[in-house]
Amino acid sequence: MQDSSGLRSDSGLAVVLIETRNPLNIGAAARAMSNFGCFDLRLVNPYDAAFREAVSAVGAAGVLASAAVYGDIASAVADCSLVVGATGLGHRRPQQALHRLERGGRLLRRHLRTSRAALLFGSEKSGLANRELSHCHWLLRIPTRPEHESMNLAQAVAVCLYELIRRPSEARRMPAAADLACADEVERFTLLLEEVLQLSGHTDYTRASGATEKTHRLVRRLALRQHDVHIWTGMLRQIRWKLLNP
Amino acid sequence: MQDSSGLRSDSGLAVVLIETRNPLNIGAAARAMSNFGCFDLRLVNPYDAAFREAVSAVGAAGVLASAAVYGDIASAVADCSLVVGATGLGHRRPQQALHRLERGGRLLRRHLRTSRAALLFGSEKSGLANRELSHCHWLLRIPTRPEHESMNLAQAVAVCLYELIRRPSEARRMPAAADLACADEVERFTLLLEEVLQLSGHTDYTRASGATEKTHRLVRRLALRQHDVHIWTGMLRQIRWKLLNP
Repeated sequence: MQDSSGLRSDSGLAVVLIETRNPLNIGAAARAMSNFGCFDLRLVNPYDAAFREAVSAVGAAGVLASAAVYGDIASAVADCSLVVGATGLGHRRPQQALHRLERGGRLLRRHLRTSRAALLFGSEKSGLANRELSHCHWLLRIPTRPEHESMNLAQAVAVCLYELIRRPSEARRMPAAADLACADEVERFTLLLEEVLQLSGHTDYTRASGATEKTHRLVRRLALRQHDVHIWTGMLRQIRWKLLNP
Repeated sequence: MQDSSGLRSDSGLAVVLIETRNPLNIGAAARAMSNFGCFDLRLVNPYDAAFREAVSAVGAAGVLASAAVYGDIASAVADCSLVVGATGLGHRRPQQALHRLERGGRLLRRHLRTSRAALLFGSEKSGLANRELSHCHWLLRIPTRPEHESMNLAQAVAVCLYELIRRPSEARRMPAAADLACADEVERFTLLLEEVLQLSGHTDYTRASGATEKTHRLVRRLALRQHDVHIWTGMLRQIRWKLLNP
C-alpha cells in the first residue's frame, strides 16, 4: 500500500521559534519538522548561536542548516498572511481568539491551501509574551491538562505538525479483510480437535451435553487465519499421532 | 468556557518504554504523559537506573516516581487485554496488522472504554525488535515521512497520547460569534471617515465615481468589532479636530 505522509513540500508553513534558550530544543524541533515534512524553520533571537550543531536534530541536519535567523518577529513573518501563536490557557485573552488545536489545525490547513502561514512558539521558560502574541491573528492551544499545561517545546511542535498532516479519513478506514481460513478448513480442524480431546480422555468436556456444538463455537471464536489454521492442524495431527503411538 | 482535557484519570492506558537508553527521554516521556493525563508509566530494563532523577520530567515528578520497572515485557503488560506496539513502516510484516495512528488511536480509545491496554515503545536506537513486537496484538505507526520516519522517543509518546485525547468534534466546532459592531456604529464611523478624507484633501479617492459606495464597502470588509469601532472612531475624531484646528 502506498502511504504518503507529511506536509506537501511547498506547504507554505513556517515554524518560528522565538528566543529559544536550549539549542537541543531547536534541534529536536527540526527533527519533528523533518518527520512531518515541514522544512521552513525560522529563529528569532536564539539564545545560543551554535544551535546548528545540535545533536538532537537526528536526520534533520538540512532543516537546521537552512534555518533563517531574524532579529524580530515582524521580519520573521513578513511573507506570511496568517500568523498563529501556540500558547496555553493562561494566556487566554478576550481580545484574541484562542482555538483548540483540533480546530486551529483545520483553519491553518485551509489557509495553507493557498497562502503562507507562520506558527509561533515562545521560549521554553515563559512561552509567548503578550508583545509577541500581538503579532498573531489568533492563538491555538494544545489540549493539555489545565493542571499541567506546559509542554516541552519540541514536543509541542511535533503535536501541532501531526495535527496538520493528520488525515481524518484514515480513522474511519476499514482495514483489509483479514485473511481468514475457509469454513471447510475450520471444520476439518474442529473435527481433528474433537478426536484429539476424545483420545486424550478429556471426558468432562467431550461427554457434556451439546459438546460438539460447544467445540464448534469455541473454534469459530478464534477467527483462525488461513495460514495459522494449517499450523494448528499440523500441531494437532502430531499430538494425535503421539496419542495413538504412545 | 470549561475546557477539560486529557485522558480520564482511570483511562487504563499504560505507556511501556522498553530498554530506553537515555534517562532524559524517560523524563520527557513522563512530562508528555502528565500533559495529556496518562500516569501509568512502565519501564522494561531501562539502561540507566537513575532515570527517576531526569530533569526533563518538568512537572511530572509524580509520574516518574511511581513508574514501575520490569524485567521483561510479559510481566509489564500482564494485566492488559490489548498490547499495541508503536513502530515504523520498516517493521511492517504481513503477519501483524499495522494501523496508521488515526485509526490505531480510534481502536485504542474503543478498547480503553472498558479494558486496560498497553502501548509499547522500543529503544531509541532500534525501536521495537521482532521479539518485542511478538507481544503485540497489532502495531501502529505515526504517519511520518517514509524518508525520515524515526521520531524522538518522547515526541512519539506525545503525538500518540494527543491522538488519544483528541476530540474530533472540536475541529468542527464553530467559534463564538465575534463581538462585531452594530450597523449604526459602523455607519457613523463610515461617515466620519468620509468627512476626514474630504478634510484631508484626498481628492483622488473622494471625487472618484461611486466614492461613497466604495467607502461603505471598504469599511464593511474590516468586520470591525464593537470595542474596536469606538477606538477607531476616537482616533478619527481627534484627526478631524486637528484638521479643523491646524
